[in-house]
Amino acid sequence: MLDDGRNVDSIFRDLEEFKKMNMTYESGRILGSMCTKPDPIGLKAYKMFIETNLGDPGLFEGSAKMESQVIDMLGKLLHLDDASGHIVTGGTEANFMAMTIAKYLFLENNSGVPEVILPCNAHFSFKKICPMLSVKPVYVPLKDYRMDCSVIEEYITDNTMAIVALAGSTELGLVDDIARISEIAQKNRLYLHVDAAFGGFIIPFMKNDKSHPLNFDFSCEGVDSITIDPHKMGLAPVPAGGIIIRDKKHLEKLSVKTPYLTKEKQTTVVGTRTGASTAATWTLLNYYGKSGYKRIVNESISLTKYTYNQLKQIPQIKLTCKPDLNIISFKVENMDSKLLQRKLLKLGWRVSVSENPYAMRLVLMPHVKKEHITEFIKTLKKVIEEK
Amino acid sequence: MLDDGRNVDSIFRDLEEFKKMNMTYESGRILGSMCTKPDPIGLKAYKMFIETNLGDPGLFEGSAKMESQVIDMLGKLLHLDDASGHIVTGGTEANFMAMTIAKYLFLENNSGVPEVILPCNAHFSFKKICPMLSVKPVYVPLKDYRMDCSVIEEYITDNTMAIVALAGSTELGLVDDIARISEIAQKNRLYLHVDAAFGGFIIPFMKNDKSHPLNFDFSCEGVDSITIDPHKMGLAPVPAGGIIIRDKKHLEKLSVKTPYLTKEKQTTVVGTRTGASTAATWTLLNYYGKSGYKRIVNESISLTKYTYNQLKQIPQIKLTCKPDLNIISFKVENMDSKLLQRKLLKLGWRVSVSENPYAMRLVLMPHVKKEHITEFIKTLKKVIEEK
Repeated sequence: MLDDGRNVDSIFRDLEEFKKMNMTYESGRILGSMCTKPDPIGLKAYKMFIETNLGDPGLFEGSAKMESQVIDMLGKLLHLDDASGHIVTGGTEANFMAMTIAKYLFLENNSGVPEVILPCNAHFSFKKICPMLSVKPVYVPLKDYRMDCSVIEEYITDNTMAIVALAGSTELGLVDDIARISEIAQKNRLYLHVDAAFGGFIIPFMKNDKSHPLNFDFSCEGVDSITIDPHKMGLAPVPAGGIIIRDKKHLEKLSVKTPYLTKEKQTTVVGTRTGASTAATWTLLNYYGKSGYKRIVNESISLTKYTYNQLKQIPQIKLTCKPDLNIISFKVENMDSKLLQRKLLKLGWRVSVSENPYAMRLVLMPHVKKEHITEFIKTLKKVIEEK
Repeated sequence: MLDDGRNVDSIFRDLEEFKKMNMTYESGRILGSMCTKPDPIGLKAYKMFIETNLGDPGLFEGSAKMESQVIDMLGKLLHLDDASGHIVTGGTEANFMAMTIAKYLFLENNSGVPEVILPCNAHFSFKKICPMLSVKPVYVPLKDYRMDCSVIEEYITDNTMAIVALAGSTELGLVDDIARISEIAQKNRLYLHVDAAFGGFIIPFMKNDKSHPLNFDFSCEGVDSITIDPHKMGLAPVPAGGIIIRDKKHLEKLSVKTPYLTKEKQTTVVGTRTGASTAATWTLLNYYGKSGYKRIVNESISLTKYTYNQLKQIPQIKLTCKPDLNIISFKVENMDSKLLQRKLLKLGWRVSVSENPYAMRLVLMPHVKKEHITEFIKTLKKVIEEK
């Protein structure tokens, strides 16, 4: 840190240089992120409320009111009246809150080491959460890249505190059979959390496919909580995660007294918490409504189908599975995925590589347009042929 | 959620209404918050980098570079070369990371329930963190409102994983005798975390008071990690917490593999993480330098002294202690603090009430100016006399 401050102009010249080192969503060349360019209307609202702190909601009653309206709207979108929850920093905090609730409920009547049953392809946040909480993760194998429901019950023990299911896996965007998992959770009286960080802002807006209805929300009676992130397909700026909870008493398990603040209790992990994300989310939900999100989601889904079909025509490419949402996974014959990734990066394309399966992964977020895909496929073909 | 989106103008009319329900720092009437009006230069940088995600730093290499420069600058400010750490969501996440590190280090060689020794006046985030981590909090009593160093060793057991000390307690802004606690930690080979969420951006900039040097940082050799929040006295917008760690290997204990992202590992609690806060912090550190922060801090400290002396002249007022930083605590004779708080709120002033001691609490943040205090003291006198 300098003794004396620097001139503003020279600082902003440096900031421009840092900015040049960053990629932009606008360029269409980020093909492996679940985040996207924030919507300008949401950003405008974000900036209006940038000084507000929902960690001290008595100071910012307008922001607190917006948060409760957002939770109500998201709850209803997920078929739940009188939802509880919060707008938090992201999927990790939301999943963390759900797992903490399940642990506290478990410890009310048990003293063993609590276990959580989750599919092998659960998001890496659970690899943070479980050891932090001192909860034992019990991984269930997959069948066709989704949690194998037929074996879940074999993994239940007296120490099982919860089941986690995915509505939009991070690597493939696949949706577990949550209706069936919900029945298993109910039968065994287990807490069920659905990680729909990604799928939560997609599935409710998709055209109904009767062959594969993707039931994933509170209409499945065993579902206790759902992670749904406005800062992914909801187009809100980071940080905007969401946790929606069926039973208010469950949220209250997280309650900690907050002496000296304006409200007596706090139920999020994070303390000081921007109200700007809530303002952005409130604004976007009102601005787009269901029909607006349907349009956005179905554009991404159409582009996913288009891209899938384009890739299918390249003989060296093997597609992993038919996408449920807007993520495509593939391998190239006789070419290591990380090598291909590096070659594409040199040509300016950021594609990601998943681990299970070890394959190329494309996420078709709203900042990706058809012209980008056309350009990308051309480059991909060239790289494959140059081999 | 509506079926069809609403008109932008009507949405922004609503947002203006919500905004009217919020208080503003600008008004000078928020006297009980550790947050303040974000600096406009920092805000400008924040907005420039609002779409960046440090959870996926390969996409945003400029932002990642800024973060490492910020950690280096904050480390050096705290007398540490080659610091490790991150800009995180706030003090809670920073304290959480430190406690998780201490737990993982403990569990490498022990199997008991880990215990953390902390002063009774530790921030309420530890009331969240301990049960989440399944760590047992062991509270040490206070002497003159600071951790009683003379008894700390009585609380150490084979299961002690760490000691926490405060550099700026939340309720009174007092600083523990960290030099002495550091010696105790070293002697007993215990991890020592300093929660300087508030004091970290104050103490280094204060005029040196030789009678009370407030040593609190890595110059005390037993200190392993420090929480220091740019979004408090650092004037950055929320969310901007900071965790600075002496030993890189300690930070790596938190490392979790991140398949499909651009970097292989992640060491924060939160996953997706805005780079905008880092940009704002980088900008403010460069813009103000030490001399700029000295000016800001010493203005708040002077106003604190002025306010303290004004309150001292009111015969019904009993001041709790001489402030170390910019927080004042007092009681009014024969008047319940919460009642007084409500009366002041009706007159438009947001003052907070601490629990230990049960007393009025004023935080003199940079948005509070002398004219606000003059006005406040007038109102306070009137309320006291009306009794």
